[in-house]
Amino acid sequence: MSDASLMNMKARKIRVAFQGELGAYSESAVRTFFGSKVEAKPCIKFSDVFKSVEQDESEFGLVPIENSTEGSVNQTYDLLLDYDLKICGETVLKIDHCLVAHQQTALRAVKVVYSHPQALAQCGEFLQRLGCELVPSYDTAGSVKMIRERGLKDSAAVASKRAAELYKMKVLAKGIADNPNNYTRFLILSEKDAKPTGKDKTSVVLSIRHVPGSLYKALGELAKRNINLTRIESRPTKRTPWEYNIYIDFEGHRKDDKCTKVLKGLEQKTSFIKVLGSYPKATLNIDETI
Amino acid sequence: MSDASLMNMKARKIRVAFQGELGAYSESAVRTFFGSKVEAKPCIKFSDVFKSVEQDESEFGLVPIENSTEGSVNQTYDLLLDYDLKICGETVLKIDHCLVAHQQTALRAVKVVYSHPQALAQCGEFLQRLGCELVPSYDTAGSVKMIRERGLKDSAAVASKRAAELYKMKVLAKGIADNPNNYTRFLILSEKDAKPTGKDKTSVVLSIRHVPGSLYKALGELAKRNINLTRIESRPTKRTPWEYNIYIDFEGHRKDDKCTKVLKGLEQKTSFIKVLGSYPKATLNIDETI
Repeated sequence: MSDASLMNMKARKIRVAFQGELGAYSESAVRTFFGSKVEAKPCIKFSDVFKSVEQDESEFGLVPIENSTEGSVNQTYDLLLDYDLKICGETVLKIDHCLVAHQQTALRAVKVVYSHPQALAQCGEFLQRLGCELVPSYDTAGSVKMIRERGLKDSAAVASKRAAELYKMKVLAKGIADNPNNYTRFLILSEKDAKPTGKDKTSVVLSIRHVPGSLYKALGELAKRNINLTRIESRPTKRTPWEYNIYIDFEGHRKDDKCTKVLKGLEQKTSFIKVLGSYPKATLNIDETI
Repeated sequence: MSDASLMNMKARKIRVAFQGELGAYSESAVRTFFGSKVEAKPCIKFSDVFKSVEQDESEFGLVPIENSTEGSVNQTYDLLLDYDLKICGETVLKIDHCLVAHQQTALRAVKVVYSHPQALAQCGEFLQRLGCELVPSYDTAGSVKMIRERGLKDSAAVASKRAAELYKMKVLAKGIADNPNNYTRFLILSEKDAKPTGKDKTSVVLSIRHVPGSLYKALGELAKRNINLTRIESRPTKRTPWEYNIYIDFEGHRKDDKCTKVLKGLEQKTSFIKVLGSYPKATLNIDETI
């Protein structure tokens, strides 16, 4: 970080980049992790979040990595590989979808519902009963903003309660998702990862040769040291169809003695490995709803 | 299958259910795998494809399982677990996105582009240069149909060449994806899997206990028999947040002696296992474009 950008930072609040409009679930995750005093900076694309941190415009970035219903956020996995940032934390947010409309709009007057296709899909049963036209859009909070700006009185959006409050709109119904157990895990990104706390996780991405037993041998480095694997995910490389990178999360900090040995062992058993970061494990607070 | 439904089948062509409108990439995959003489039956949702086969309305179903750029199709993984169908084949299709509009529309007249959000994202660079409004919709071919039916002369859709032909529209540009190496792998579903051919794959889904080394021990069943693991994927269960099912593809047919032993071994090392099917491996024909 240059002296000039350090000077700039001192003169202002800590800035955290996220994807989406103000009122997006990602902004709620920023508030959950950092508290209310940071500046949450909206970005159009996921890659803009990474760029904002890389170019020292924001101290931190926050991106979703997986949803308990939908699975992995593919783009985030790819960007972790492309950019040279570190994961320095994680946080879990309960997603509580609401139907949001103008103050004057009654539930029976709603003819069209806008939202991100995943949010529409997650509320399939409620929306089917409501029997209105569904229009996919890029963003949950962005749909609320658009309905407000265009004064659409026969429309509603699937979005968070916070989006309703922020744009001074009304919550017509809440808890409208088919499956109420809907959580998203977010990663916090910065230029350095976090110091060991004793309750950490390490994320790596690696490639293995395509011969029988190669993944087995790599995982043996964890198993023989009794280290818990918390997540494994394969993602296609962009270069060659059906060639995969494997993302692995395991317990422990890369500076812990056992983990240092694991990483050395993995280096010998893989054709490529990149440590994405070590960071304190999130505690899953099932009751907390934003 | 009941006698009545067998009688119905004899009186008509083999029917294959797929998701999307006629002209969708899935319909092209049906034609690639089964030839031109089958009846391709459009379904609104992925689950409708599974239902159509389960209820003997279609002999086969075809669903996308992974894309070389975007990764896994999460919904398909979940439906494979929920329904009791078998994977009896796979096929790979090169995805070649085109910009499709009315015969009279010139490229410079296009103000709005409609398509599935993934298709819009995959053509990001081309569409940014074009500089028009992007509107996400449910379907690539469905967007072509809608532009035709509504007579939108200032609009275009990202879709296949086949969709353009089918709806008698014009291809304004082809090969517009950022990454030309764009392939989708589809699974063929039926009530039974396929007979051994000597070049087969087997797909299973399993759960393991959350203790160190449990995935390692399960994969050992493959490694010690020198069987190649071709794919591994973890998906959240819908019941409990951050509890995963693991989907594994490996080489060989479940009736092969080595694979029978693997499956017996896996049964003992997992808390749950379901064989999704054994089927002939697709040969990836890189040059073929639909």
